[in-house]
Amino acid sequence: MQISPSTQIVNIGGFDIGGPNFTVVAGPCSIESPEQFSETAHGVKASGAHLLRGGIWKMRTSSRDFQGLGTSAFEFIKKVCKETNMSLISEVTDIRQIEEVYDLVGCFQVGSRSMQNYELLRELGKQDKPVLLKRGLAAYINEWIKASEYITKGGNPNVILCERGIRTFETATRNTLDLNAVAFAKKNSPLPVIVDPSHAVGIRALVPDLACAAAAVGADGIIVEVHPRPEEALSDGMQALTLADFSLMMKRLDKILNAIERPLHKAKI
Amino acid sequence: MQISPSTQIVNIGGFDIGGPNFTVVAGPCSIESPEQFSETAHGVKASGAHLLRGGIWKMRTSSRDFQGLGTSAFEFIKKVCKETNMSLISEVTDIRQIEEVYDLVGCFQVGSRSMQNYELLRELGKQDKPVLLKRGLAAYINEWIKASEYITKGGNPNVILCERGIRTFETATRNTLDLNAVAFAKKNSPLPVIVDPSHAVGIRALVPDLACAAAAVGADGIIVEVHPRPEEALSDGMQALTLADFSLMMKRLDKILNAIERPLHKAKI
Amino acid sequence: MQISPSTQIVNIGGFDIGGPNFTVVAGPCSIESPEQFSETAHGVKASGAHLLRGGIWKMRTSSRDFQGLGTSAFEFIKKVCKETNMSLISEVTDIRQIEEVYDLVGCFQVGSRSMQNYELLRELGKQDKPVLLKRGLAAYINEWIKASEYITKGGNPNVILCERGIRTFETATRNTLDLNAVAFAKKNSPLPVIVDPSHAVGIRALVPDLACAAAAVGADGIIVEVHPRPEEALSDGMQALTLADFSLMMKRLDKILNAIERPLHKAKI
Amino acid sequence: MQISPSTQIVNIGGFDIGGPNFTVVAGPCSIESPEQFSETAHGVKASGAHLLRGGIWKMRTSSRDFQGLGTSAFEFIKKVCKETNMSLISEVTDIRQIEEVYDLVGCFQVGSRSMQNYELLRELGKQDKPVLLKRGLAAYINEWIKASEYITKGGNPNVILCERGIRTFETATRNTLDLNAVAFAKKNSPLPVIVDPSHAVGIRALVPDLACAAAAVGADGIIVEVHPRPEEALSDGMQALTLADFSLMMKRLDKILNAIERPLHKAKI
Repeated sequence: MQISPSTQIVNIGGFDIGGPNFTVVAGPCSIESPEQFSETAHGVKASGAHLLRGGIWKMRTSSRDFQGLGTSAFEFIKKVCKETNMSLISEVTDIRQIEEVYDLVGCFQVGSRSMQNYELLRELGKQDKPVLLKRGLAAYINEWIKASEYITKGGNPNVILCERGIRTFETATRNTLDLNAVAFAKKNSPLPVIVDPSHAVGIRALVPDLACAAAAVGADGIIVEVHPRPEEALSDGMQALTLADFSLMMKRLDKILNAIERPLHKAKI
Repeated sequence: MQISPSTQIVNIGGFDIGGPNFTVVAGPCSIESPEQFSETAHGVKASGAHLLRGGIWKMRTSSRDFQGLGTSAFEFIKKVCKETNMSLISEVTDIRQIEEVYDLVGCFQVGSRSMQNYELLRELGKQDKPVLLKRGLAAYINEWIKASEYITKGGNPNVILCERGIRTFETATRNTLDLNAVAFAKKNSPLPVIVDPSHAVGIRALVPDLACAAAAVGADGIIVEVHPRPEEALSDGMQALTLADFSLMMKRLDKILNAIERPLHKAKI
Repeated sequence: MQISPSTQIVNIGGFDIGGPNFTVVAGPCSIESPEQFSETAHGVKASGAHLLRGGIWKMRTSSRDFQGLGTSAFEFIKKVCKETNMSLISEVTDIRQIEEVYDLVGCFQVGSRSMQNYELLRELGKQDKPVLLKRGLAAYINEWIKASEYITKGGNPNVILCERGIRTFETATRNTLDLNAVAFAKKNSPLPVIVDPSHAVGIRALVPDLACAAAAVGADGIIVEVHPRPEEALSDGMQALTLADFSLMMKRLDKILNAIERPLHKAKI
Repeated sequence: MQISPSTQIVNIGGFDIGGPNFTVVAGPCSIESPEQFSETAHGVKASGAHLLRGGIWKMRTSSRDFQGLGTSAFEFIKKVCKETNMSLISEVTDIRQIEEVYDLVGCFQVGSRSMQNYELLRELGKQDKPVLLKRGLAAYINEWIKASEYITKGGNPNVILCERGIRTFETATRNTLDLNAVAFAKKNSPLPVIVDPSHAVGIRALVPDLACAAAAVGADGIIVEVHPRPEEALSDGMQALTLADFSLMMKRLDKILNAIERPLHKAKI
């Protein structure tokens, strides 16, 4: 293997992140309905995804936008996770949500807007489930790594760093994917590092190219947005892959990952 | 008056912010001791400051840095505010702190790292005290204004916008003060807009120049860091004015503000 | 005077830039016709402008946009300068243009795209006329000052630095005016520093506010775009002041500049 | 092949850039001496490089830094190119240099500081040799593509775009490699796109990771800095690969490129 594994290996739903295999997390931006979530989950599993993503409470720039289904979705989320035998990664935006979703998720996600919500990080440091820490929009790599220490020093070593694009002057793409930061963090932090190409570029047609780049640079996995009908999505439809796009992307990734001796995890049944 | 007042006027401690007069908020970055806070408060009042600033819980990039005195400082803070007859603006970084500091402050501050902590904003929307909303490090002006609506639409109209510098490629200064944003926000939001030149430039010798620029561009006030002995400050000493610097700056401001018919508030006794 | 003059004072057309008085350069983005240039020149002079600006060859992002009148405009430009008794500052984008415009201009301008065109800078270092050096779109303050040394070390000490906004993530305004850089450069370079609020903000209604801020921060002058009918301008019409706007701005500037004891130069007759 | 070739294929020294094969350009930042250039050229050829790079006149931020050997190096450069049967890509910073280096180079390079030196671009549009156009430090993708049209519309269709990192707030790496831009430009311009990972990250140990990412994202080639003894380099030593590093990187690239069916060109003898 040409790319060294992380010192800290984080297990979510039976998959080691940061070890010899590459992990793919997929699902919708927002969980919108039982049908949408179920169709997405079964679809991405069929193409080899290992873990599910999906927003329950959405952070939206405008207070008038769709804010997520909240607790009303809990029952069907559990059902879909059980049917597919997949764990869910979902964002918490407030300390009070940690307890609420504890039974539902395999991993807490901290979004880029919350990367320096230190009270939230401290509370997650007391949990016994992993945390996916997205890099802030304008966070130095160093601030991102230091933010992770609010969690690890609090007693929870199971943190995964996630690069999701930074805000720069460029406007043709949603954000600027910073793979320098992935290469840098892999060598300067003991934690696994994954990449979110969907938010990083914001244009569906370019997501697979950047997912392949993330694999080649040495990331430990990716987290991507998939929607059965992106044109109907309540949030971020422009960047969601269709199930067919996702399937093709997985085939491209598979070849590159085999070439660099960092194969995809075998899917659970 | 050449610069139009805000539609929404916000009163803190007896001073209207956003009306015909200019407001100066001054004090230490962190409240470090009874002596430091008292000396600073009496000193800035003597030079004409209207309101006090001072951090009780500090957000620090590293979990190992000084995190503020917290509740242990409450008694002496109350005493100093009473002695000087000045209201305090202080940051809350978590919902639980709102109730704790309610009696202590004349205005809640939301720091740049928390600008999109929407749960915190929603909670502040239920309060009957004003909120100072700092612009996020990499927030579009539009996102900043939309963040303010999480508070105002929640029922609290008393929000003040605060420009404190954005993160750009430039490294010679701490941040880049964006006075374009002040001029833009004054014309595109009903709220008062003030400027924090201390964080925006990060170099003591340049703070007064930028305070004067803020006055001339049409800001409704400034919030500046002052420390009796900046070289001993536990945080941000590089950008704190001495009491003598502050006094000189007030004299410069006074002339410019008179010239633009936007005079300083008369101090309370 | 509260703002210290520059060590190097640069005289253009009889006006000292960097000394005790403030200088105003005004004119169109592009010189478009004898009528447009003449009307603008006489108009700004009547309101107190000291020097003229106007592009002869324009640098345009697209090769299909208006590229300037070039040499065909020389005769009427000379006539207008003579009638108004004002010197012209105009951009050169190539070494070959230096000789061509030598007799026409009182000062060569180097645009932001050319700030690191070192061959051009070296050639300007051999000239006996002043050079206005605009800061590059993404140039560190330090790179800007070092670029000026390509000219001064070449033998031409008469360089004026010009801050014209930097490229940041913000899109509500054209660029981000960096007044930190003006304050910094005034203290870290012997050269005069002026500000171009027109390019820096790109929105007509905000230009006067930022011109006032530039005066208050300690700039030695401003350079602004004025057009008799901005809606008909062939370039940058959105940011051009009308003659009436310009006149009002001059009245605001006059008050602030008197307050800081940095009055406008008296106009020549 | 999963990655579509460019519409415009550009041949340099017998290698098609933008077609079914991947091209590697390697060499020193600056050509420093006959020994350094010869050792580098023979070394990179032995590991499979196709074309040489090397600066003759260097653009330096400070006028006091090493400015390149200039014409004194022409004889030995020719000799090394002949011995290795490799073409050279080298930067021109001024119109007058085009004729000077015409016989020496297989392709003219336009550096990032000159991307909007339109007079230079227009002149290169009249040449019958290819041009490598680096993206400006803060150029929008769209401005970069439009700059290429100054050359192609002038009559020279043989332009290669080169992403070399943009200037952002991040300081841990030299620039931020923008692979979004590579994916975007491949789909929105007919021209081949290559990547310079050396300038883009500025840290030797990370260059191979980013070269692999560039290959995976769909770039048509890379241009990298190699120095036999980077610690002795007169410019950019921190980011130069040793000959051993380069050889290892080529092995990693070879595997990824085969996996994506975009193999390296076979080397000429």
